[in-house]
Amino acid sequence: MEQEPCHRAAPPHTHPRQVPIRTALTALADPVRLLIVRELAGSADWTRSCGSLRVPVGKAALSHHFSVLRTAGLVEQRDEGAKRLNRLRRAEFEERFPGLLDLVLRAEDDAGDG
Amino acid sequence: MEQEPCHRAAPPHTHPRQVPIRTALTALADPVRLLIVRELAGSADWTRSCGSLRVPVGKAALSHHFSVLRTAGLVEQRDEGAKRLNRLRRAEFEERFPGLLDLVLRAEDDAGDG
Repeated sequence: MEQEPCHRAAPPHTHPRQVPIRTALTALADPVRLLIVRELAGSADWTRSCGSLRVPVGKAALSHHFSVLRTAGLVEQRDEGAKRLNRLRRAEFEERFPGLLDLVLRAEDDAGDG
Repeated sequence: MEQEPCHRAAPPHTHPRQVPIRTALTALADPVRLLIVRELAGSADWTRSCGSLRVPVGKAALSHHFSVLRTAGLVEQRDEGAKRLNRLRRAEFEERFPGLLDLVLRAEDDAGDG
């Protein structure tokens, strides 16, 4: 089976409670990462592999974006066989930054976005 | 009287209701702009000139940061004599992005920030 695009060594994670607000804002201020967050928000935990996400970037870029999302406490990843599965850390992130994720997810169709 | 560091032609403004979430997040994800926003949040409207802000950047950089803040619907400016005075658009921004500004202002002393 082909290796998944974000599959490398076991990835380091940062818990949202250790994330500075600036890191969280920067992570969410990118169109590709917003796409990833929104796709994960619309899927059950651990059901989406990195390769299943519809994002218009190559493997190296995708790997970078997932690294940023893990560092911002937004995404948790675990390997299952050849796949790297994902979970949006919705509850923990909400506890750390109340309302921020909802704001971002709600804003999909807002004025001038895109 | 010496010209204020952010004083040029009458500045263009963007109302928060026309601001995409990504623009708002990017504007707030910068340490210097966070300093400006926090200083303005702690001052009455129209009492702070650009030159009165304690930010560790030169005139050109400060002018750029104020441009970003106006475009994100965060700051309103008007000229009074030789001074350019500022106001944080707290109510309008809050209406557009509920909770976001409070989150940022509250996070001043948070884990690992800086």
